[in-house]
Amino acid sequence: MTENRPAKPQTGRHNLDPHLDRYAARTAGMTASEIRALFAVASRPEVVSLAGGMPNLAALPLDTLSAQVGEIIAEEGLVALQYGSAHGIPALRDQICEIMALEGIKAHPDDVVVTVGSQMGLDMVTRLFCDPGDVVIAEGPSYVGALGSFSAYQANVVHVAMDEHGLVPEGLREALHQAEKAGQRVKFLYTIPNFHNPAGVTLSVQRRPEIVEICREHGVLIIEDNPYGLLGFDGQTYPALRSLDPDNVVYLGSFSKTFASGLRVGWVLAPHAVREKLVLAAESATLCPPTFNQMIVSRYLATHDWKGQIKKFRENYRERRDAMLSALQQYLPPGCSWTNPDGGFYVWVTVPEGVDTKAMLPRAVTARVAYASGTGFYADGFGSRQMRLSYCYPTPERIREGVRRLAAVLESEMDLSRTFGSVKARTIPGPETPSPDTV
Amino acid sequence: MTENRPAKPQTGRHNLDPHLDRYAARTAGMTASEIRALFAVASRPEVVSLAGGMPNLAALPLDTLSAQVGEIIAEEGLVALQYGSAHGIPALRDQICEIMALEGIKAHPDDVVVTVGSQMGLDMVTRLFCDPGDVVIAEGPSYVGALGSFSAYQANVVHVAMDEHGLVPEGLREALHQAEKAGQRVKFLYTIPNFHNPAGVTLSVQRRPEIVEICREHGVLIIEDNPYGLLGFDGQTYPALRSLDPDNVVYLGSFSKTFASGLRVGWVLAPHAVREKLVLAAESATLCPPTFNQMIVSRYLATHDWKGQIKKFRENYRERRDAMLSALQQYLPPGCSWTNPDGGFYVWVTVPEGVDTKAMLPRAVTARVAYASGTGFYADGFGSRQMRLSYCYPTPERIREGVRRLAAVLESEMDLSRTFGSVKARTIPGPETPSPDTV
Repeated sequence: MTENRPAKPQTGRHNLDPHLDRYAARTAGMTASEIRALFAVASRPEVVSLAGGMPNLAALPLDTLSAQVGEIIAEEGLVALQYGSAHGIPALRDQICEIMALEGIKAHPDDVVVTVGSQMGLDMVTRLFCDPGDVVIAEGPSYVGALGSFSAYQANVVHVAMDEHGLVPEGLREALHQAEKAGQRVKFLYTIPNFHNPAGVTLSVQRRPEIVEICREHGVLIIEDNPYGLLGFDGQTYPALRSLDPDNVVYLGSFSKTFASGLRVGWVLAPHAVREKLVLAAESATLCPPTFNQMIVSRYLATHDWKGQIKKFRENYRERRDAMLSALQQYLPPGCSWTNPDGGFYVWVTVPEGVDTKAMLPRAVTARVAYASGTGFYADGFGSRQMRLSYCYPTPERIREGVRRLAAVLESEMDLSRTFGSVKARTIPGPETPSPDTV
Repeated sequence: MTENRPAKPQTGRHNLDPHLDRYAARTAGMTASEIRALFAVASRPEVVSLAGGMPNLAALPLDTLSAQVGEIIAEEGLVALQYGSAHGIPALRDQICEIMALEGIKAHPDDVVVTVGSQMGLDMVTRLFCDPGDVVIAEGPSYVGALGSFSAYQANVVHVAMDEHGLVPEGLREALHQAEKAGQRVKFLYTIPNFHNPAGVTLSVQRRPEIVEICREHGVLIIEDNPYGLLGFDGQTYPALRSLDPDNVVYLGSFSKTFASGLRVGWVLAPHAVREKLVLAAESATLCPPTFNQMIVSRYLATHDWKGQIKKFRENYRERRDAMLSALQQYLPPGCSWTNPDGGFYVWVTVPEGVDTKAMLPRAVTARVAYASGTGFYADGFGSRQMRLSYCYPTPERIREGVRRLAAVLESEMDLSRTFGSVKARTIPGPETPSPDTV
């Protein structure tokens, strides 16, 4: 190596990253969530975190699972620890079809592709369909991880409003009309029909055929993301969009909320032609999903009362949902409103004019409560009067205490706003990247 | 749903995929390997497969592992089965630094990002750096999975030749010069310095500083892919390129060949600024790598004589390498040549003029032996006189038998060629996608 190395290319006067000139254009949208730094503080035990989307796994049968994972290695270790196919193991793909049948889906196991969590499914679908500048339609707000994938492939997100019955068909029609008028290529509608993350609402049964039909009419594919569908608090399920139009819906499923998120096992059910491309895309992304993890899920489903287990999860979450809704009712100042989820993990809260949830977050964390501010769930900087509260993880007592603390912070913020006018956070439009804290 | 649905957009007269108009431009390069269909046949027990790159795991201590995975769930199940960070668990990142120190790397655990196999690391690095049309320089031949990722991000691959001492510095200089003259943006050199897949050669110690310096001079990053570095048959190791220029090398590591491929645990060691972006990219790809799998690897490293285990693997592979080289010497017809690997999994064979390895493959499979034809390892359709033979998986006896069968097929192919002229396979330039059979 010579001593006198040539000067590195420099962009900007004080740039600390010598690689700055080398990054792909897509990295421009890749910025860490501003709230991420706060999470280090928010994860202290004295802070009640209503920010995260971590499932509460306490009800899992760890003794049984401990024995089963050991058995898999002892009995089939050389298979479990070896490469598999990018398609996924056949036994699990069969079982996934049985699960999807609970929501009215008739599918062939060949059309299921196992992925490293449904986040990978989302990423693969975007990889397959989106060129830079293509439009993706999504609910507003939408899942932060989806916005991260869309941004990674430089797709433009157009948000469509929801009401208490979910995505508004008229809004979808209007968005498609506008995009067509502007000559934009709309690649798909990305939607979470059941127990929406972050909005906490469910697409009504009446609207489902209409949404499906609108997309058909406009030649737009539907990406149906359904991680929470079996977590309806009354055991209710809804017909999957995929069951209404198998050829025009790509369905994403996950074991993260119904079994164990740390195994990272999800799946995509795709029309046949799409499925073949999906397997090829998955090979270039990870070669194959972990074989052992697929076998763990498969054995668990084959030997355990997994429906009973989901019922336990549901009851657990319902108790927490009840605690949160009653605490919101009791503590939140007038002028706040929120959604009433019938399942899933989240309540979406709108605060009075003059309060900026992003600007307020550091003060909330100081008051020992954390939430996810609304802006992270929009690609366009909207959401500063919204926040997502998760009830999935803390105990009901902690949830009540968290909401009590949040209410006090809100009250003082509203006082300030009345006295001095609203405090605006520095707004950086564009999606924040997801993190396990905000899934 | 109305009865009279509008006609779907159609491309081509007899197109069976209604989604054809919707795919991203990158999918054009996404075609299944032509040899994939053959693998269904090649995986029959009567066929000796010298095609796959599956590690031979028979030496693994399954009893110990069985107990350990059970303990992890019993003792720390609620952590193991829960989401983690996209960065990876700290204990494992510490251990990874100890492993990399064996090849001269001094690294901070903060700069390690755990990935779902090093395939994901490769995909993430390409995502970070490559815009469509950017140039990636790679050895010719190169790893098929890398070519798949480069193709997914629409990068153009320029191959540089190797000789028995690895990548040829003059070739690298020339390629960089040509690209610069043509105004192309070269983003990085992708290289496998140790026990190359598929070429079976190792970059000499003398050349390493020169390669590093050339890349520095031209402002080109190095992606160093090193899955086989600890599998040198004499226990020898080589100084990692990363150890020679930490700021300009992104290093990819893997537990797939030194422990268990089915767990899908690999890593990227990146310069600090790159590492931050890498974590963000990984979040949008899979949220986080499986927590349980990371804990399994970490506990195995902490409690097991993993260096002794790698020694066992090495001895196993050396015995198979010996069997293959002596069989090639004994059986292969005159005019064939091959590399002499000192480690790793592969021998690269060149056959006489007139023989096309892709055209010959179906006949080889009929004769109950399979290999990977050379064209899959080039982005430009080259490699039809080459083939990769893997000695990692079959027993030495089976390897000898496989080579004997292959030699007979070659002889008859050469006879045919002498009589009727060469038989050309239909050549489709462009990389074939990887599959676990060809890793």
